[in-house]
Amino acid sequence: MIRVVILGAGNVAKHLYNAFIYQKQVEVIQCYNRKNLQLHPDQKRETIIKDLSLLKEADIYILAVSDDAIERVSGVLPFKNKLVVHTSGSAPVHIINDRNKRGVFYPLQTFSKDKIVDFTTIPICIEAENKTDLEILRKLAVSLSKKVYEISSEQRSILHVSAVFVNNFTNYLFSVGNDICNEHKVPFEILHPLIQETAQKVIEMDPHKAQTGPAIRKDVNTIERHLKILTNTTQQNIYTTLTKAIQSKYGKEL
Amino acid sequence: MIRVVILGAGNVAKHLYNAFIYQKQVEVIQCYNRKNLQLHPDQKRETIIKDLSLLKEADIYILAVSDDAIERVSGVLPFKNKLVVHTSGSAPVHIINDRNKRGVFYPLQTFSKDKIVDFTTIPICIEAENKTDLEILRKLAVSLSKKVYEISSEQRSILHVSAVFVNNFTNYLFSVGNDICNEHKVPFEILHPLIQETAQKVIEMDPHKAQTGPAIRKDVNTIERHLKILTNTTQQNIYTTLTKAIQSKYGKEL
Repeated sequence: MIRVVILGAGNVAKHLYNAFIYQKQVEVIQCYNRKNLQLHPDQKRETIIKDLSLLKEADIYILAVSDDAIERVSGVLPFKNKLVVHTSGSAPVHIINDRNKRGVFYPLQTFSKDKIVDFTTIPICIEAENKTDLEILRKLAVSLSKKVYEISSEQRSILHVSAVFVNNFTNYLFSVGNDICNEHKVPFEILHPLIQETAQKVIEMDPHKAQTGPAIRKDVNTIERHLKILTNTTQQNIYTTLTKAIQSKYGKEL
Repeated sequence: MIRVVILGAGNVAKHLYNAFIYQKQVEVIQCYNRKNLQLHPDQKRETIIKDLSLLKEADIYILAVSDDAIERVSGVLPFKNKLVVHTSGSAPVHIINDRNKRGVFYPLQTFSKDKIVDFTTIPICIEAENKTDLEILRKLAVSLSKKVYEISSEQRSILHVSAVFVNNFTNYLFSVGNDICNEHKVPFEILHPLIQETAQKVIEMDPHKAQTGPAIRKDVNTIERHLKILTNTTQQNIYTTLTKAIQSKYGKEL
């Protein structure tokens, strides 16, 4: 049995709590947050604390708090030499106060408040300062997911910046497409299957080889027509920047 | 029974042929292409022609040719007053020679050569110059797909420019993420579930509301750290352009 304490009450804290309660080999013995919030309607009130001095002995303390809070919260924990991990994609492991043994338990997914997630398919990136701790983290991770990766802080920062491109920026492009459709009263839902297929393709083939469209074809007429349709300068700027980037990437091959 | 002739031998022509052969109410009576290519291994040789003068009488002639070729091929068809449609997202209907009745049969999806597609979920955008032709196109479209939309040439051009954002540009961002991971020897596959979820979310919620990441949070430290990790100026330029665009879009709301 792995005894776990979760600190924090955000999306990651809630999703982890909800995933751990179905694991026989894991027990979430306590949850800490400043507002005494339940992470699940069935959570027993006595397991929720808002005073760090009440923290019980556990195998792993998971700091599922915002990046900015990791250093501060880890610095006021009333114990030492315990395994304390954060769940951040971008913060290095050493941001955790060094009175405790440090690690990372980073589920690489975008979590929404109300959306149930299937943890078995979520990659979990683990990091620890020694082999024993790494094995405890691995045991905890494989209890939830089939995809567990040992990833250093440096590698995690690479994943994080890549995630900004494939998740944050991609979602923004979806919202631009949505805006363009809305402005002209065309139902955006017509594009939903294309979006699904675009994401599906990346699993089956290298995105470099999957590139299509007027930019890679150097179809100047279509590009000009598109820029005339876009009246918003931000949209035009993005269209031009990405078109040039695609053409410069594939220029030598054409 | 709708009697169809397909002109062209590219991806759209092949996928349409392969979809129509399973429809009882549709018969592809002939296929034209200059190289006498089969669109399917089981296609009978006598139904393939490379001479337009051999074209038989049909209900619909589908020009599944490149955008540039629509005008030319439609101009040399040896008949008049027949229903001739193209399959392009960007070409207007009137690009088809006006000796025939003109229309559009545009399946809005990205087609790869070897990948089987499920046409039942692919939106088909139809357009015609009169109601009778529109109903024939609708009958043909609903034989393949549950999602049939009557879309004008102007609306289709809006869908096309939106598709560049949600498909071409999105795929390019995936390839940037892939490049960043490869450069640093981090497996890009770790990001696959995130990509799937990003695309899935757009179906369930407005992408405007789904936006997350350092740009919308105005997390200057993370943005600066990311720009230092990116050594490629094109990647830095895209990162900055999209970050600014997100901040300007959400600036008023923050």
